[in-house]
Amino acid sequence: MTDTLRLHPERLLPADPSTRRIAQDLYEEVARLPIISPHGHVPAQWIAEDTPFGDPASLLITPDHYVTRLLHASGVSLSDLGVGRGELDEASSRAAFRLLCEHWPVYRGTPMRLWLEQQLVEIFGAHEVPSAETADRLYDTVAAWIARPDARPRTLMDRFDIEVLATTDDPCDDLRHHRTLAEDGSFTRSVVPTFRPDRYLEPAAADWVADVDRLAQVSGHDTQTYAGWVAAMEGRRDFFRSRGAVSTDHSHRDLGTERLSTGEAERLYADARAGRISTDAGDRLRRHMVGEMVRMAADDGLTMTLHPAVHRNHHAGTHRDFGADVGADIPLAVEVTRALQPALSAHGTDPNLTLVVFTMDETIYSRELAPLAGFYRSLRIGVPWWFIDAPESIRRFRSAVTEIAGFTRTSGFIDDTRAFLSIPARHDMARRIDCGFLAHLVVEHRLTEEEAAETAVYLVSTQPREVFGL
Amino acid sequence: MTDTLRLHPERLLPADPSTRRIAQDLYEEVARLPIISPHGHVPAQWIAEDTPFGDPASLLITPDHYVTRLLHASGVSLSDLGVGRGELDEASSRAAFRLLCEHWPVYRGTPMRLWLEQQLVEIFGAHEVPSAETADRLYDTVAAWIARPDARPRTLMDRFDIEVLATTDDPCDDLRHHRTLAEDGSFTRSVVPTFRPDRYLEPAAADWVADVDRLAQVSGHDTQTYAGWVAAMEGRRDFFRSRGAVSTDHSHRDLGTERLSTGEAERLYADARAGRISTDAGDRLRRHMVGEMVRMAADDGLTMTLHPAVHRNHHAGTHRDFGADVGADIPLAVEVTRALQPALSAHGTDPNLTLVVFTMDETIYSRELAPLAGFYRSLRIGVPWWFIDAPESIRRFRSAVTEIAGFTRTSGFIDDTRAFLSIPARHDMARRIDCGFLAHLVVEHRLTEEEAAETAVYLVSTQPREVFGL
Amino acid sequence: MTDTLRLHPERLLPADPSTRRIAQDLYEEVARLPIISPHGHVPAQWIAEDTPFGDPASLLITPDHYVTRLLHASGVSLSDLGVGRGELDEASSRAAFRLLCEHWPVYRGTPMRLWLEQQLVEIFGAHEVPSAETADRLYDTVAAWIARPDARPRTLMDRFDIEVLATTDDPCDDLRHHRTLAEDGSFTRSVVPTFRPDRYLEPAAADWVADVDRLAQVSGHDTQTYAGWVAAMEGRRDFFRSRGAVSTDHSHRDLGTERLSTGEAERLYADARAGRISTDAGDRLRRHMVGEMVRMAADDGLTMTLHPAVHRNHHAGTHRDFGADVGADIPLAVEVTRALQPALSAHGTDPNLTLVVFTMDETIYSRELAPLAGFYRSLRIGVPWWFIDAPESIRRFRSAVTEIAGFTRTSGFIDDTRAFLSIPARHDMARRIDCGFLAHLVVEHRLTEEEAAETAVYLVSTQPREVFGL
Repeated sequence: MTDTLRLHPERLLPADPSTRRIAQDLYEEVARLPIISPHGHVPAQWIAEDTPFGDPASLLITPDHYVTRLLHASGVSLSDLGVGRGELDEASSRAAFRLLCEHWPVYRGTPMRLWLEQQLVEIFGAHEVPSAETADRLYDTVAAWIARPDARPRTLMDRFDIEVLATTDDPCDDLRHHRTLAEDGSFTRSVVPTFRPDRYLEPAAADWVADVDRLAQVSGHDTQTYAGWVAAMEGRRDFFRSRGAVSTDHSHRDLGTERLSTGEAERLYADARAGRISTDAGDRLRRHMVGEMVRMAADDGLTMTLHPAVHRNHHAGTHRDFGADVGADIPLAVEVTRALQPALSAHGTDPNLTLVVFTMDETIYSRELAPLAGFYRSLRIGVPWWFIDAPESIRRFRSAVTEIAGFTRTSGFIDDTRAFLSIPARHDMARRIDCGFLAHLVVEHRLTEEEAAETAVYLVSTQPREVFGL
Repeated sequence: MTDTLRLHPERLLPADPSTRRIAQDLYEEVARLPIISPHGHVPAQWIAEDTPFGDPASLLITPDHYVTRLLHASGVSLSDLGVGRGELDEASSRAAFRLLCEHWPVYRGTPMRLWLEQQLVEIFGAHEVPSAETADRLYDTVAAWIARPDARPRTLMDRFDIEVLATTDDPCDDLRHHRTLAEDGSFTRSVVPTFRPDRYLEPAAADWVADVDRLAQVSGHDTQTYAGWVAAMEGRRDFFRSRGAVSTDHSHRDLGTERLSTGEAERLYADARAGRISTDAGDRLRRHMVGEMVRMAADDGLTMTLHPAVHRNHHAGTHRDFGADVGADIPLAVEVTRALQPALSAHGTDPNLTLVVFTMDETIYSRELAPLAGFYRSLRIGVPWWFIDAPESIRRFRSAVTEIAGFTRTSGFIDDTRAFLSIPARHDMARRIDCGFLAHLVVEHRLTEEEAAETAVYLVSTQPREVFGL
Repeated sequence: MTDTLRLHPERLLPADPSTRRIAQDLYEEVARLPIISPHGHVPAQWIAEDTPFGDPASLLITPDHYVTRLLHASGVSLSDLGVGRGELDEASSRAAFRLLCEHWPVYRGTPMRLWLEQQLVEIFGAHEVPSAETADRLYDTVAAWIARPDARPRTLMDRFDIEVLATTDDPCDDLRHHRTLAEDGSFTRSVVPTFRPDRYLEPAAADWVADVDRLAQVSGHDTQTYAGWVAAMEGRRDFFRSRGAVSTDHSHRDLGTERLSTGEAERLYADARAGRISTDAGDRLRRHMVGEMVRMAADDGLTMTLHPAVHRNHHAGTHRDFGADVGADIPLAVEVTRALQPALSAHGTDPNLTLVVFTMDETIYSRELAPLAGFYRSLRIGVPWWFIDAPESIRRFRSAVTEIAGFTRTSGFIDDTRAFLSIPARHDMARRIDCGFLAHLVVEHRLTEEEAAETAVYLVSTQPREVFGL
């Protein structure tokens, strides 16, 4: 006999009975509100073409580095999980799925476990705890679901009640799938692109010259000069806005925004074009360019999200064999107060500008981000993201920032995921934890229940709309 | 109908019923103990001249950057709150007060809300929740209170039972108001000055030469040489001690205390006098001077409080239009172990020396401050201060430092405020949270109730007296 | 009448009644499991020779810097506690013991208090709370226990059910006591050495040349060249393994593992041998050597523990008068992501390698260590250590790392102590707190009770065996 998989209705709510009762009431207010997902990595093509999902492993395991990395740490090779192997045949997919089920205990205490459980029960209707014994039956259940005609992205957009879904896109992308969706009168949901220009802002990177050459082609602006680069960027931002974009997304080693003089910027840009810029000078030019993007954001109103300080592709062998984005990106410490000072001093009180800083360096919450966002109207504190998009971490976040900046200075939840089926579970987890935190304030008589209910709805519905201009 | 404003007697106490009962009992022991406020920013003149308060906005909003900054982040201009405008006419004051009330929800989850609520109920006898609808009535209530003959600083010193109140003063100040108070036999409370010499320790700052010239005039010591500077400082410290001072207060970019050779110090000092010292050399001389202040503190017994690593006047436009101390000061990371090593190695076991380090960089609590204070008798861990003088933050503080250094190595609570009327609410919050933490230890059988009660009283009464030599 | 000392059976378990009930059930599963102590500082000689303990102060106070440092911070001289004085006569020991008892309140809220209480009750059968009044009676009780024939290390190894006890040893040590124990058929416990080579990896340190000369003598390898140094290290590691060692232990200022070219390493090594290496070059060579030790660990399978970033001997006077390891070592911030990248990129997926990183810089838990250990099979997150081996800190640790890396990527508990009698209390505290954390997950329906029980046993029994290859 195997254990039954159950989702307890009170899961993730605080233990204390009075607090839990209040948290449940608050959760009832927000549990069924539409999902707004203003930052994520689901491909627009899936929705545009209503692509059927592939095999169970390709659906739930292979592309999700949250899931694969902990198996990898447990001694499972990424290759056996299907990473880097394209489409999987049935035997390979089943074998990868079995590896997940056999290693189920390694996920104890993690959000991946909770997300997967919720998918198993609510989407696939499975009732068995994953294990070596149940692996094949669970595989069959998932495979049968995939074969159903309603197991399609567009149907799920409705079933999950995803009102807005943002994708992440290269500035040179033609956004044809977004256009298809926008022009499709039968599609009532909103799928919007996000402008992600990192590669064009790293002048010392190997591919940069080729990248800005392509940018010139696509934009019609000559990118031989810094002024041309600015015009090209502005042009592509305009194009993205015309396709529904509400934000741009940025990730560099640091948050620096220090401006150069025009002459210095032009000189360094010319060096970069000539392929002779140093790493250090490349960083200085990049910080200037990021500052330029802040200026553009203040001009055109695209919200600007920043999630700096990640050591990408930490393990050389994995990068060589499997490429990027396979779970080997590791956070670094980050500094905000000095780094954002030039941009905030110039644009921080501009009502047209919204910057959101996400971090995995929790030390900056109370020390830097909340003090800054509690003064500058343009700055929002990004909710916990990536590794710390998880129950205890969200509690630490609310504990650290609320006392300094209240609830109105945060970003609203983002799921930041490629794992389409996990989106409801991720939003549900955040809603439960936020309701628990609000209940904690109520039970200590720091907030009334009415205020808490209003705030719970605000965090789920109003805030993301406000922050992302939806 | 508007909501009724109530202060729940169990507010800020832990949710778990057993823990709350113990916390209540502990709180009963300390709730009515006199307030000792050994560090703050209330002007001595107010007390000396028993100055009536001005209008409601000038009393509760304009000078309190905790309150104004979150309104500013919500898009309200500082000017509309009265900042930088001197005395406010009735219309302006009422308009500013209305802005506060209309934005009341932005304070949810913050201590500012709790402090203001407690003032509204306990001082003004108001019973309405601030809102656009109630703003004018609340304004009138506060205005009527201000007009009362007992709404005066001296009466409130008694009513709040403030036994000791420390002000913050320039070394060149003549402390006439402190003298007035000391010589006034009818005034039974203690108002003591605090020696705040920062500007005289930044030799690379623009005004430094003029500042030390003034110091020469006031002290009667020639400050053309480093030896003269030392003599002038010692002289002013003596003067402050003669007027009741118990501490000196210091805030620089870092905590460095590295000494220079006498020759090097003299040479750099001469460079600074000649206006030709570099920023870097200025920092080195400043660290030497801070080390000198530690030496003086070990000699004359004045407690030395340090709260380093703040980026002052972060927003250029606000600084230009409204000056300093208007909410645009932002914390930075800080390092203690290496920075204080020279001073602690020289004086850290001296029974006559007390250093208190306050921080907004919480990372140093368990990593550096508690380990240091758990070894050096001269070092005390400053309680949470400024942005983190708040319930969750105080809990994190006790959680981080107590296991390493116990209760006896902390500083006692400081309110650090200019908002005179908020002093009782601030001390009350800290007492409630500390009692909650002690109750948490009791309910886990880590402390007996008797020990917890003794410790609660110790933290409120004995510790600040001990740390500040009162 | 004095207070009665009691150990409450529910101590250190969470307050909420449902959570506590679950935690108690979990604790019942692990409370009596054998102790595995894979890292500590008890001398092998004590066990080998079954040395009787000395006087009460030398047993409980003098060698335990956790205990002495907080008395020192309270104004007690280390000398009066017997530090640096060798054997204590009865009067001195009694006086030191009285100082501890008189200052008992300074330990409130600390683990030292809980460890000492548990020793007083469970080992010495004492029932009085330490105080000036009870000091002499308690001293007599302890002294009487010391005189008992069963108050001997070997008997206590059985009574405490210590299955494995690791010592910490110099690479040049002949490990004669370990040999004695291994060859003694009547001794059924395991006492294993640990290879601690720090001094041989600091080429810029004053004694380094003499140290590697001694290493040459002991190992039979010429350490005039870098290749000889490598051979000598490998030889001594082999010897340690032949004596039962399962791990090597390392503590340097940073975690750097950057490799040099062979030529560069040889050149710097030659400079160091000639006594003309700079501090900076010494650090670079040391990082290369640490990288070399990682390579050796991947070859010979000895687990490698690292606990970097401590400012040793912070107080010059104490170092001069009392030497090292007397409580004046203070943590520093540490960086992992970049520092370990060379070693992890080269060996991080090697199934034969196990690295454990311990830290007192809690900021790296969620930011760096858990993300790294959640990807690299060779890396384990060290449990809280030294100052943060304490209830609240262990909770923060589990809260920070579990969501990212689960339970399987941590190290298992280590007591790291010289205080032999405190070992059971230390393991008991960790077991209680871990059970409380697991119960917290159960009560929020994030884990079933069966899974929690399995995990509790795993953490106590399976994990340390797995991590240390026992």
